[in-house]
Formats: sequence, C-alpha cells, structure tokens
Amino acid sequence: MELPPLKRRVLAEKTRSRKTRRVWKLKLNITWQAIKKAFTSKNRLLRLSCVQLSTINIHQDAKKRKNSSKPHKTLANLLHVPYTASDFIDRGDQMTPTLSPKENVSAKWREIHGSCNWENLLDPLDPCLRREILKYGEFATATYDAFDFDPLSEYCGSCRYNRHKIFEELGLNKHNYNVTKYIYAMSHVDVPEWFVRAHSIWSKDSNWMGYVAVSNDQESKRLGRRDIVVAWRGTVAPTEWFTDLKTKLEEIDEENEKIKVQYGFYSIYKSKSEFTRYNKLSASEQVMQEIRKLVNCYRENGEEVSLTVTGHSLGGALAVLNAYEAANSIPNLFVSVISFGAPRVGNLAFKEKLNELGVKTLRVVVKQDIVPKVPGIIVNKILRKINTITQRLNWVYRHVGTQLKLDMFMSPYLKHVSDFSGSHNLEVYLHLLDGFLGKKLQFRWHARRDLALVNKSSDMLIEELKIPEFWYQLPHKGLVLNKYGRWVKPTREPEDIPSPFSTELSNHELTF
Amino acid sequence: MELPPLKRRVLAEKTRSRKTRRVWKLKLNITWQAIKKAFTSKNRLLRLSCVQLSTINIHQDAKKRKNSSKPHKTLANLLHVPYTASDFIDRGDQMTPTLSPKENVSAKWREIHGSCNWENLLDPLDPCLRREILKYGEFATATYDAFDFDPLSEYCGSCRYNRHKIFEELGLNKHNYNVTKYIYAMSHVDVPEWFVRAHSIWSKDSNWMGYVAVSNDQESKRLGRRDIVVAWRGTVAPTEWFTDLKTKLEEIDEENEKIKVQYGFYSIYKSKSEFTRYNKLSASEQVMQEIRKLVNCYRENGEEVSLTVTGHSLGGALAVLNAYEAANSIPNLFVSVISFGAPRVGNLAFKEKLNELGVKTLRVVVKQDIVPKVPGIIVNKILRKINTITQRLNWVYRHVGTQLKLDMFMSPYLKHVSDFSGSHNLEVYLHLLDGFLGKKLQFRWHARRDLALVNKSSDMLIEELKIPEFWYQLPHKGLVLNKYGRWVKPTREPEDIPSPFSTELSNHELTF
Repeated sequence: MELPPLKRRVLAEKTRSRKTRRVWKLKLNITWQAIKKAFTSKNRLLRLSCVQLSTINIHQDAKKRKNSSKPHKTLANLLHVPYTASDFIDRGDQMTPTLSPKENVSAKWREIHGSCNWENLLDPLDPCLRREILKYGEFATATYDAFDFDPLSEYCGSCRYNRHKIFEELGLNKHNYNVTKYIYAMSHVDVPEWFVRAHSIWSKDSNWMGYVAVSNDQESKRLGRRDIVVAWRGTVAPTEWFTDLKTKLEEIDEENEKIKVQYGFYSIYKSKSEFTRYNKLSASEQVMQEIRKLVNCYRENGEEVSLTVTGHSLGGALAVLNAYEAANSIPNLFVSVISFGAPRVGNLAFKEKLNELGVKTLRVVVKQDIVPKVPGIIVNKILRKINTITQRLNWVYRHVGTQLKLDMFMSPYLKHVSDFSGSHNLEVYLHLLDGFLGKKLQFRWHARRDLALVNKSSDMLIEELKIPEFWYQLPHKGLVLNKYGRWVKPTREPEDIPSPFSTELSNHELTF
Repeated sequence: MELPPLKRRVLAEKTRSRKTRRVWKLKLNITWQAIKKAFTSKNRLLRLSCVQLSTINIHQDAKKRKNSSKPHKTLANLLHVPYTASDFIDRGDQMTPTLSPKENVSAKWREIHGSCNWENLLDPLDPCLRREILKYGEFATATYDAFDFDPLSEYCGSCRYNRHKIFEELGLNKHNYNVTKYIYAMSHVDVPEWFVRAHSIWSKDSNWMGYVAVSNDQESKRLGRRDIVVAWRGTVAPTEWFTDLKTKLEEIDEENEKIKVQYGFYSIYKSKSEFTRYNKLSASEQVMQEIRKLVNCYRENGEEVSLTVTGHSLGGALAVLNAYEAANSIPNLFVSVISFGAPRVGNLAFKEKLNELGVKTLRVVVKQDIVPKVPGIIVNKILRKINTITQRLNWVYRHVGTQLKLDMFMSPYLKHVSDFSGSHNLEVYLHLLDGFLGKKLQFRWHARRDLALVNKSSDMLIEELKIPEFWYQLPHKGLVLNKYGRWVKPTREPEDIPSPFSTELSNHELTF
C-alpha cells in the first residue's frame, strides 16, 4: 500500500452514518501528491478504485446528480478518494441488514415480468426489477443449497429437507412463498456421471430436480397476483454435463415439425419409466400436473395467476422447456422465464413459437461465462470435420428472449481471473446483479447483498475480504458425534426422506 | 461380490452378543464350493479376508487357544469365514462405546513407562500399555485439533480454546487430566511458511506449541503417581518443515561438547525475543518453569511424580529435547517420552547421555512413514555432492530409545497405498496401535477405536466405510450467520484469546 497515512485518515474519519461519512470523505484534506501516488501506485486495487471512483461518485446517487456541481462533490470526483473492497470491510456492512425494502409492485408486475420485453428497464436497471430477479435467483440457489451432493450419502441426489421446511432451512422464508411440490427427473440419455451413486438407496435413477412454490396471501397482495414459481436445478460445474450431453435436436411439436430443441435437455424433462419410484411420471408430467392444479384452484378463487419459471445453467434450459409447455397447454396464463447462465435450448422455430405463445424470457448472462454460448460451441466441435456445413449449423440453436448482460470485471470484490466455473457460479451472478446499475455504470455502491455468499461454492472473492473458499458445507461433512462417542452419519429424519407420494399430500394443503 | 447368498446368511445369523455371534458363525452350514469361490474371488477384500481370517481366528482369543482343538473351532479356521471391513460396518460398532475399561496400573506404572525398556511388553503388545500409549497419543492429537490453522483468522497459529476448556471441547475429559499451562514457541531459523500470517493480529512470531497437563486425584490414584504430561504439537504434513529446516547439529551441553542435536528443532525449543509478546521466554523456559513448579508442589504434598512427554512428528522431537532438559535439571524425576512418527533428534553422544539420565523413550513408528527416517535422508540429499563423507555422516543422527513398529498394511480398514502424508498422520498411528497385537499377528478384531477419526485429516480409510475425507473442520469453515442475515467470522470469545500471562493465572489453581 503506497498510502498508509492517507488511508488511515480516510478510515479514521468514517463514522457509522453513511451520510456523515460521505460528507467527511469530501471534507478530507487530501493533497495532490497523495492522489498522484495513488494513481501511479503499484497496488492493483488502489489503481482500480481510482478509475472506478470517478464513475461511482457520479452514479451512486443518480437522482442527486444535479448536486454534482457543488464544489465539494466535484472535488470528490476529481480527487478519486479510493473506494475499494477494504472500504466495504470497514464500512461495517456486516452489521447491516441484507433485506431490501419491498415495495408494492401490483401496478407494474406485468412490466417487471416482461410484458414490454423489459424495454427501458434494463439500462439503467430498474431497482424493483433487480429485487424481483434476485428473488427468483434465490429460488434457484435453493435447488443447489438443499441438494444432497454427497456421493457417500444414501440419499445422494435428493433434497436434504422436505418441502415444508426447505425455505426455513435456507433462510428463504422472507420471500413469503410456500413449496407445494418437489420435481424429480431422470434421463434416458447417457448423462455423464452426475454423481457416483454407489451408496444410494433411495433411487438409482432419479434426481431431485426442483420444486413448485406459490406466493402466500401477503406476498400475492404485494405482487398484484398469485405467483406460481417453478425453480429448476442446474449443475454446479458446467463440465458435469455440457461436454457430454448429446447435442442433436429433437422435434417436440407434432403440429409443427420445424420446432426442435436440444435432445439432452428434452430427455431430462420428458423421461419416465415404470420401473422407477420417482419417475413413473416424467418431470414434465409432475410439474404440469401441479401447475394446472394450482392455476385452477386460484382461478376458481377469482385470483389472477402468473407462472414464473426460473433456473440456473441446465435449470435455465429446463425452465424454458417448462414455460413452453405451460404456455402451450394452459390458456391465458402469463408465463415468464428468468434464467441465469442458461445454455441455448432450441432452434429458430422454437424461439418463434415461444414468442407467439407470449412467453417472456429474461436471460441473465455473465459475459465471461461460456455456458450461455453452448450448445453452439459443441455443435461446432463435433462437426468440425464437416466444415462445409458448420456455418449453416452454427445458427441452429437460438437464444430466446431478452438478455441482461453482466460483467465480472465490474465488481471490485471479485478476483479478476477468467475462471471457467467461477464465472458460471450462480452466486457470482446474483452478486453482479446486486451491483449492476447499467452497462456503462460502475458497481453499485449501495449493493448490500451478503458478499460472503459468493464464496459458498467458489473462490471468486478477493482475499482481502477474508472469506473462506467453498465454505458452504455441512459441519464435519455431515458426521455427528453420537452418544457412544463415535462420529457417524446420522440417519435422515423420516420426514426428510424423499417420497414419491408428495403429490397426494399437497392436495390437502392448497390453502396456506 | 462373488458370494452374496453366503454373505447374506453370515450377516443374517449375527446377533448383538459377540459370544452368540461367534457360535453362530461356527455353526454355519458353509459348503466347500463357497469357500473355494471366496478364495479364487476377484474381490480384493474377500481374498484378503480369507488369508487374514486364519490368523485372526487363531489370535483373537489368545487365552482360549487351547479350545481350538474343539471340532467347530477348527472348522472355523479351515472355513475362513470372511471378516472384512464390511463386517465391521455390519457388526454395529457405531453403537458401541469407544471407551476401554481402565484398570488400576499403580503397581506396574514404571514398567509401562519403560523402566525395563518395555521388554516383553511390545510383542505381543500389553493391553494396559496399549491403552496408556493411546491416551498420550490423544493428548498429542489435541495439539492439532485445537490449533487454529486458518490463514484468514486473526488468531492463526493460536489455540482455539483456552486451557480450561480445551479437553472438554475435544472430548478428552475422560482422561481426567487438567491443562495447567500453554506453551508458545518461535524460531530464529528460517522455518518455511508455517502459515500465511497476513491477517494475524495476536502474534506475528509465536505459535501455540503445546501444553502442560497433570492428572487429577482420581486418575493419579489409578496411575499410582501424579503424572505430569507435556504434549508438543508437530506439523500435519511433513512437507511443512522437514525439507527446509536446517539440518546441522548444534551443541547443547557446555560440559560435553560432543552432545549435539538438530539445529532446527533446538531453535524452536530455545528461541526467545524481548520484542515478542509470547516468547519473552523460550518454549524451553516456559515448559521447564511449569514442570518445576508442579513437581515441587506435588512433592511437597508427599506425592510420587512422573513426567511423560509426548508429541507427534516435530512434536516428538521437541518431546525428546524437553525430556532431556527435565531429566538433566530435576533430580530423581521419572521421565519418559512417548513419541509418534518422530524424526531423529541428536547424535550418538546425545543418545548416550539420555540413557545415562534414565530417560525412557518409546518411539511409535509406522513402517511406511518416512519422517522417522529424517534428518538422515536430508543430510544425504544435501551432501550428495560430497559422496566420500556421506557414509560417515549418515549415522550422525541416532534414534533414541525403544521402537514400536506398526505396519499400515496390517489394517483391513486402510487403503493400501503408499501415501506420503497419510502414513505420517497421527490418527493413522493411533488406529494401527489400537489394532496392533504383535508383529506377526493380524489386526485386533476387538479394536474399538472410532474408525472415522482416521479420516479427520486424511483420506486413508477405504471407501466401503463411507466416511468423508478430511472431515474435521469448523462448520461453514468458521462462518456463522449473524442476526442481520450475513455470514461472518465471529469474533473470538475474550476468554479464548491467547494471553501471554497465563502463567500467573495458573499459580492460583494448582489444586484441582
């Protein structure tokens, strides 16, 4: 650090109140020598922040921009007082709530869900929209956080909690939704080793693939309608699947043979077998049954109903397939998709049909993430021998909907490395989203989402934040000390053992 | 598995009572075809167990061997009913206590601590001795288990708990000892990066290096004397230090210039600096002060006192230095060392002096562990250019005392790989010790030490046991959810923040 005395003074002058702090910063008696030093500093963070600050200061209070002509504001901009990750550490964020205020969006929920294709909402990003996208993103994280990844577990591939307590366990009760159904999927495709299933007793074939939830009365009031959400689980590392999945296109519509989607995704969505416990019905049948039931129930109750399908990675692809089917089979249902880092799903005809059905899709994409670029990439790879037709095939897969593009390098808290799986990580997505103001604007200074979450299953946070890498895991990797003084895998609570009969249960609990 | 029906029958016939089970096994109606199949099976474990069982059955109840002429016993030996790791899983060990019965050893404690150089106690291994060695081994594990390894922690390099609660936290209260003093060490040698100390606030120079504990009244009665134990911390992976420590010898005795010990170890034991908080006194001074105080106190009380110094790896080397100093400076004190995987410490003159002082050293060594072979190896490496004198230097370092040699391949529960750090792991040592009957005898069938402990900081257990690898760690790597919904590093309890003044405190608490 080239500037310890200055730095120390900046930090010393800070107080708890943000307002006071800002004023103090501007009042700082900083010499030009110090600034020059900062600019020519070898410290990457310091230099970085100098460049950033000019923009941060301009944009942080966009509404108050008119004030920027005031002498001290201009001075601050000129001086580029360094805001760095260490400023975050010092500003006491750890002692502030992460919850954002939730305003009533009942008047504009259709716009938020893309009725105007998110025109004028994305750049700068509408704060309401940001909060809603983050909510659906957190629904998607639940599919990872509750998933039993442990290859030594007897329930590997299932959800660790039953649907009644999953949100409570994961701290998602705040969103005021209730899970009504778990979805299981299998695949007839030779999906690569998802997990080593050597010890699995609950099912050899099926995986917990997501859930259906519905907003409760309070949230429905705020949202202006009863919101059914379906969250689809993806894969943590893209390598788990996308290099191996078969990439041929499959027809899905008898009436229109031109409509084709990626065979691997479609297989996961549609596969079933009489010989399994959890997939006597396909994921598609399970989810559509539940959606139909909920829509009918709430419509009978005279309520407006919407369907929002979300998912990350492979989950985003399944979300699109799910949205397609729902819009195609349930008339007059407002269906939108909010996907994160999702690969391409189908061809041009599929895209056109989706548009025709009125399905609104917002694809949140990190620039450095390569997953949204597949399967185009794979098609190229497989067919590189047939060079003559590569050109033609390259455009077979088409992205649908509207894109919200994030950039890893926007965040001062992320390591600026091109990390293959780091840039695909859902928590990195949500962090970038939380800080996103606009394409040409810098990271949002007021972003308050817990930074530690980024490192749950990644090592993307800069070391200065002192957050351990890949920290999200069970204590002692799931072992507990029993009364005999032995470390053992506890047997799962009977209520959390997966059951293929959860449909029947949910019939009795439609009203919350 | 070639023999599922047989296997299933064997398991089905088992009952809780071990005695009944044994009888049942012998009554089993096993055909020779099945036995042949087992012998020619491609399953490694099955074959292995066939070979093992012949010996296990012979030795498991050595006292009852005379019965082996009974027809059904002989039959069992001939039939080689397979005992495998899976038998362990099935026999319900997880629901049995790990605690062994503790017999009164007051009449023979001197023999147990080597007064006769452990003659006739090691092969076959005396059960009382085994239990005592395991106790000291567990005291050594405490120095790892309570150590703050986290490079992001402000207290990296310290003990996570204060001395009053360390045994309770680690489940070692059962041994009925109380910790009276923590020992800190530094080194003037360029010890390689023990830890990245970027965030340390408590001390830049010192590390928690072990503790002094003393048996309480109850345990002292059982032991036949007041036992002072000093446990020295080593290093988890040998690579942390032994490749880099300077390997020259250092004189330690003014009266006898011939007595020399390894300079690196000696430096850690003896270094101090006025400019540190925790090493104004060297580790040597700290520990000797405490030992003297305890010895005087209990002798004044008319009690017999012994000193047992223990440690693993580097800790074993420090234990020898400590024992040497104690025996040299406190007259008529019975001093013994029980070390695990310790490297060589000094030369021939040092060894002779130790013998002369009456220090009894039991070195527990795993055959596949290379650490006990250093620093000889390093000397060779460094001096390989000077081939002519290598021969002479190779015997400069001498092991002291009596060796108890264990073999990784004895245990049916360990992976049979030559793993560099796995074979050095202290928990692997304790597991092998628990199963050790004698050099030519197989693993002890009655060994009941918790197998899961082996994988605390290793991946040495066979996969069949389904114990996660390296499972011993703080939940969420030390992060906790605060009331604001953020994942943060909790500040350490004030009582657990290291203090250089713990000596003063312990003055007031000598009687427990």
